[in-house]
Amino acid sequence: MKKRVVSWVACTVLCVMTVFAQEALFNKNDITSPEVNADGSVTFRLDAPKAVKVELTGDFLPLMKVSTPKGEVEQAGIVEMKEGENGIWTYTSEKLSPELYYYKFKVDGMDYLDPSNVYMSRDIATYTNIFIVEKEKGDKGCLYSVNDIPHGNVSKVWYDSPTLKMKRRMTVYTPAGYDKGGRYPVLYLLHGAGGDEDAWTTLGRAAQILDNLIAAGKAKPMIVVMPNGNTNCEATPGEWSKGMYKPSFRGHATSKAVASMDESFPDIVKYIETYYRTLKGKKSRAICGLSMGGGHSFAISKRYPDMFDYVGLFSAAINMGGNDTEKEIANLFAARPKLYWIAIGNTDFLYKGNEDYRKFLDSKGFKYEYLETDGGHIWRNWRIYLTLFAQKIFQ
Amino acid sequence: MKKRVVSWVACTVLCVMTVFAQEALFNKNDITSPEVNADGSVTFRLDAPKAVKVELTGDFLPLMKVSTPKGEVEQAGIVEMKEGENGIWTYTSEKLSPELYYYKFKVDGMDYLDPSNVYMSRDIATYTNIFIVEKEKGDKGCLYSVNDIPHGNVSKVWYDSPTLKMKRRMTVYTPAGYDKGGRYPVLYLLHGAGGDEDAWTTLGRAAQILDNLIAAGKAKPMIVVMPNGNTNCEATPGEWSKGMYKPSFRGHATSKAVASMDESFPDIVKYIETYYRTLKGKKSRAICGLSMGGGHSFAISKRYPDMFDYVGLFSAAINMGGNDTEKEIANLFAARPKLYWIAIGNTDFLYKGNEDYRKFLDSKGFKYEYLETDGGHIWRNWRIYLTLFAQKIFQ
Repeated sequence: MKKRVVSWVACTVLCVMTVFAQEALFNKNDITSPEVNADGSVTFRLDAPKAVKVELTGDFLPLMKVSTPKGEVEQAGIVEMKEGENGIWTYTSEKLSPELYYYKFKVDGMDYLDPSNVYMSRDIATYTNIFIVEKEKGDKGCLYSVNDIPHGNVSKVWYDSPTLKMKRRMTVYTPAGYDKGGRYPVLYLLHGAGGDEDAWTTLGRAAQILDNLIAAGKAKPMIVVMPNGNTNCEATPGEWSKGMYKPSFRGHATSKAVASMDESFPDIVKYIETYYRTLKGKKSRAICGLSMGGGHSFAISKRYPDMFDYVGLFSAAINMGGNDTEKEIANLFAARPKLYWIAIGNTDFLYKGNEDYRKFLDSKGFKYEYLETDGGHIWRNWRIYLTLFAQKIFQ
Repeated sequence: MKKRVVSWVACTVLCVMTVFAQEALFNKNDITSPEVNADGSVTFRLDAPKAVKVELTGDFLPLMKVSTPKGEVEQAGIVEMKEGENGIWTYTSEKLSPELYYYKFKVDGMDYLDPSNVYMSRDIATYTNIFIVEKEKGDKGCLYSVNDIPHGNVSKVWYDSPTLKMKRRMTVYTPAGYDKGGRYPVLYLLHGAGGDEDAWTTLGRAAQILDNLIAAGKAKPMIVVMPNGNTNCEATPGEWSKGMYKPSFRGHATSKAVASMDESFPDIVKYIETYYRTLKGKKSRAICGLSMGGGHSFAISKRYPDMFDYVGLFSAAINMGGNDTEKEIANLFAARPKLYWIAIGNTDFLYKGNEDYRKFLDSKGFKYEYLETDGGHIWRNWRIYLTLFAQKIFQ
């Protein structure tokens, strides 16, 4: 009797569940999209038999010039997909070079996420599907992928910030082998405006980049601390008591912060150096960030000239305002950081601010390294900058 | 000169970025959806001026009976939305009781995620938007929300499984205050078929439930370990070297596992008790799981009768096959677990298997507690079961 019941249960799990259980469990969609072909081209597919027009937009398509009230601007390219007899629309791209790419569909004008692709990233309030093209070991696609190597752990950690009068959430990467013992240097890695403590591990692929560089012996094993740079917030949207609100570029909360990122930053360092096995002293600390986070790295490093031996400004929003700015910068360079690294894309809207800042540094004889890449204010550049910066620190 | 540059940069960050930077950053969508109204009704909105028909489906709508080749089955309800003059479609629900709800739109027949709602959960290969209705302190909506209380940390941790011959990823919740010291009991919390180590913290709201119960003094501070129950996988899709594949219900990998979940389970306990500050012994260990994970909890607890004092089977897929099953169950009950807890919904497709198992336990005089709720094989029930089970253990 029991045996028969068992077989019934086993069969049930395999067969009947597809009919009875909650709808979300059983999507019948069995289209493959995107499909990275052997030659590096990518085929996209969407089942939309009733659609009149299906388009694809993605950052691998040539930029288009569009007129706006503020003049001509560049936007992501867009192409039309073709409908097959079965109502499935397809498009195959050119051969793409190794990279992590974004895309989404437009169905009769409405943005549409690819239901066949569970991989997507949120940038502020907008999701976009992602895929990776990789060709060979060590290329960018490989570097942003999860490979068969030891992996670090990624944790969402609540720390106390007495300066900001709140508990706050940050993301902490500990390298493979951290659990077995030892002490490690620390990289503080800061996000841009509109971002949060999730941004570098999602859009930025920080854990994959570090795993891959460390496994290849190209970067030292290090702890990477990714705090939340919005000092009026405790955490990423939905992860603190403000509720499931819609994030926006101009700030994640309506309240005013009681202190700035640079004023409150020592709370983070104190927590990390108390509760993690860290190597102490400026030679074992690095800080870098993108855009607003580059501005934070600029501000924090000059405010605490003995804290970091490695400073990276990625497409940084540099603010030279304030009475003591020049004096603080002079103090920072007097403390002789091992590396002061500036990187920006040649079409970045912050290019001129960075150019002026470099002129200032040159005029004072303050030593820095400079990298200029193609492109603008985009994650594709920031992933490259992290990859390069991570190999330059703690060596 | 510098001051002027600075102002330009500041203005740029605020104004120009909205035009120039990457498209994904600047979604102009400023609709609020969903909006939970003061009376508990919820308004949904979608900007779709070209759509002919926009519908809404969600688990708060009455179930519909649908004919299939296998007979009549129940499916999530669906309602039509109304178009306003501005092309914005709206629907306002009845007053909803406190709960976490799922929904999505259908635009001219195609499933469509709400672009105004950044909150969604993935169930195998399908995303659904979510929202929470809460009314008062301690209700289900409140229990699943992030409140202004101390929070535990959630980590993605790689452990070594010699039995499965791979490194594997699990989710570990450490309660608020863990960093400050002390030793803690451990709950092992297992997911169902098609799920992975992310399921309990996303669909299951495990971190919120534990945070809220612990802060209210209703559950003991505990470590919660959520491993991956697919023993042919290292990790959730996209987080191991198999690439960004599309998960499916019948298994996440094509290769065969070298051992089962119960055979390999001691590897997990060993890792946790080596690298976390745990209280040792069976009185400080609990195991529970849903569906396949309920089956795993059944199998693991009988295989290691001295490991757990608390066992929870949630809508469990119970497999009485195997020569020693009855003997193992007898050994387990001879070791006198403090709690053997069975819970299932009265329309769950595994109801009969559980009923037969309870008859077997009754026939042997083995003591267990039993809870029967309304509803079927759904996360809504499993969140309730976790909430109740967590309050019964380590007390």
